[in-house]
Amino acid sequence: MSFKQSLLTGGKRFSIHQVRGLDTMINDDVLAVEEPLELRLESGTEKERTEKSISITMRTPGHDVELAAGFFYTEGIIHGRSDIEDLAQVPGPGQRLELCNVVRLRLQPDVTFDPKLIERHFYTTSSCGVCGKASLEALRINRSTAIGFTTVSLAAKTLENIASELITSQKLFQLTGGLHAAGLFNPSGQLLCLHEDVGRHNAVDKVIGDRLIKGHLPLKDSVLMVSGRASFEIMQKALMARIPIVAAVSAPSSLAVELAKTFNMTLLGFVRGNKFNIYSGASRIKSGVTPS
Amino acid sequence: MSFKQSLLTGGKRFSIHQVRGLDTMINDDVLAVEEPLELRLESGTEKERTEKSISITMRTPGHDVELAAGFFYTEGIIHGRSDIEDLAQVPGPGQRLELCNVVRLRLQPDVTFDPKLIERHFYTTSSCGVCGKASLEALRINRSTAIGFTTVSLAAKTLENIASELITSQKLFQLTGGLHAAGLFNPSGQLLCLHEDVGRHNAVDKVIGDRLIKGHLPLKDSVLMVSGRASFEIMQKALMARIPIVAAVSAPSSLAVELAKTFNMTLLGFVRGNKFNIYSGASRIKSGVTPS
Repeated sequence: MSFKQSLLTGGKRFSIHQVRGLDTMINDDVLAVEEPLELRLESGTEKERTEKSISITMRTPGHDVELAAGFFYTEGIIHGRSDIEDLAQVPGPGQRLELCNVVRLRLQPDVTFDPKLIERHFYTTSSCGVCGKASLEALRINRSTAIGFTTVSLAAKTLENIASELITSQKLFQLTGGLHAAGLFNPSGQLLCLHEDVGRHNAVDKVIGDRLIKGHLPLKDSVLMVSGRASFEIMQKALMARIPIVAAVSAPSSLAVELAKTFNMTLLGFVRGNKFNIYSGASRIKSGVTPS
Repeated sequence: MSFKQSLLTGGKRFSIHQVRGLDTMINDDVLAVEEPLELRLESGTEKERTEKSISITMRTPGHDVELAAGFFYTEGIIHGRSDIEDLAQVPGPGQRLELCNVVRLRLQPDVTFDPKLIERHFYTTSSCGVCGKASLEALRINRSTAIGFTTVSLAAKTLENIASELITSQKLFQLTGGLHAAGLFNPSGQLLCLHEDVGRHNAVDKVIGDRLIKGHLPLKDSVLMVSGRASFEIMQKALMARIPIVAAVSAPSSLAVELAKTFNMTLLGFVRGNKFNIYSGASRIKSGVTPS
C-alpha cells in the first residue's frame, strides 16, 4: 500500500474592484481554488486489470488522496484500508504533482467491484419508486445498520468549544470567505482532523479519508462538525464512517434528520455559542437536556 | 407541448430540542424538505423510442418541471422550448402528484440526443488532461461563445435593491434557514422569477427552466442573484442561458471568476448593502467604477 500526499494549493490571487458606497478601489484578493478532480478505480486480478473513471468532482486542490479514500469508502466501494493496493495521484507526462487532477485507487486483487454501486440509482426501490424513504432503505441494504447505543456523550460546553475551534481553524476560509469546513473531534472537544473545500461533501470525504489512511476507522467515538448545512449526503457519509454525532453551523434538511432518526445518530444544528438545536439523538447530549 | 405544474411542498414540521444556555425547550420547527428527483429523458423516432434515467438530484420538491427544463437546457441536451414534445411529472400507480419524484422530458422526434453529453467527462481534453482550463474549453465546444458587448448595465444602487429584494423574497429560507435562493432580475431591479432549493444549482435550474417554459430564453438582459457562493456550476448555467451579470451574496471560486473572464460575463460577490466586489466585467457596473 502506498500513499502520495498532495501539496496544499487552495488559494489563488485575483485583482478585483472593491466597491464601498461611492468609493471604488482596485485590490488583490485571494479566492478559493476550484478545479475538477477525476477519481479512477483499477480493479481485477493481476492478469486482467480494468481501470474505470468513477467520478469527476469540483474540489479545492490539496489532500486529493484523502478525498479519494473518503469518497471510495463512503460510497461503499472499499470497506477499509486493507482493500487498497495502491492509492496515488497520477500526473500526466511532465506534469507537476500539485497541478495533477487525477487520483487512482487500485483495489487488492481479491476485492471485487460492483459497478452498480456507482450508478447512484440506489435512491429507488421497487416498492415506492424514487423517494427519501427509499434512499434511507438503500443505505440499510448497503451494509449500514443503526448506530448502536454507545457511551459516547457530549457536554453542551464542549460543543461550544468545538464550534469555536472550527471557526478559528478555517485558515483558507479566513483568506477567501469561500470554503466549507469539516472537522472531526473527540468527545472531549479535541480536534482530530480538519479539512476545507469548495464542496461540502469533499471536505467530509477528506476528513474520513485521512482517518482511513491512518487506520482510525470506524470513528465510533467522535463528533463531526460542518461549517454549513447538514444534508442527506453529509449524514450518509458520517453514517458510513460510524460517526455517532454530527453538528452543523446552519440548518439540517428534512432527509438529514430522517436519516439521523432512522440510524440512531445525533444531529445538532444552528450551533452558535451556547445555543443549538437537537434534531435527533438528544440522549447523547449532556446538560439539563430532556432525553428524547 | 404540455407542462404539468407541481405543488409547493418545501417545508416539513419536526419536533426538536432547542438548547439556549442552560434552558432546553421542546418546540416544533419547520425544515427544508430534501427528496431525490429522478430526471428521465425519452428520445428517438415515433417507432423506436428509448427512455433513459439521466440524473438523480437531491432537491426541495416544488417546480420540478421547471427544474427538469432548466437542467436539460443548461446541460446542453435541449436548445430551447421547441425541442420538447412533452415535459411532465410521472407519478407511480395511485401516487399523489405532490409526492412524485420523477420528471420525464420527451424530445421531439427530430431532436437527436448524444449520451456523451451527460457523461460529464467534458472536464478533460487530450492536451492538458483534467483541469479547470479544459473545463472552460469544453464549455466553448459545447456551443457557448463569449457573451458579446451589450448595452446592459447595472447601477450600484439597483444592485443594492436586488440584494435586499432577494432576502425578503426567500419565504422558505425565513421559515427553515436551510435553503439557497436564485432570483432573476431585469436591469431596473425588477424581480422576474425566484426559486428556493436545498441545492444551489437546483434553484438556478428552476429559474432558467421557468423562463424556458414561458418562452423567455435567452436571458440577455438580466441579472442572476444567488444567496450563497458562486461556483463554476452556477456560472456555467448562467452562461448557457446567456445571462450577462451574476451576483452572489458570498464569495466566488477561482474557476467561477475564470469562467466569467473567459466568456465576458460580469461577476459580483459579497453583495451586501452598498458594498460589493467586482471580479469580472466591471464595465457593466455604473457608479464611479473604473472600467476594467
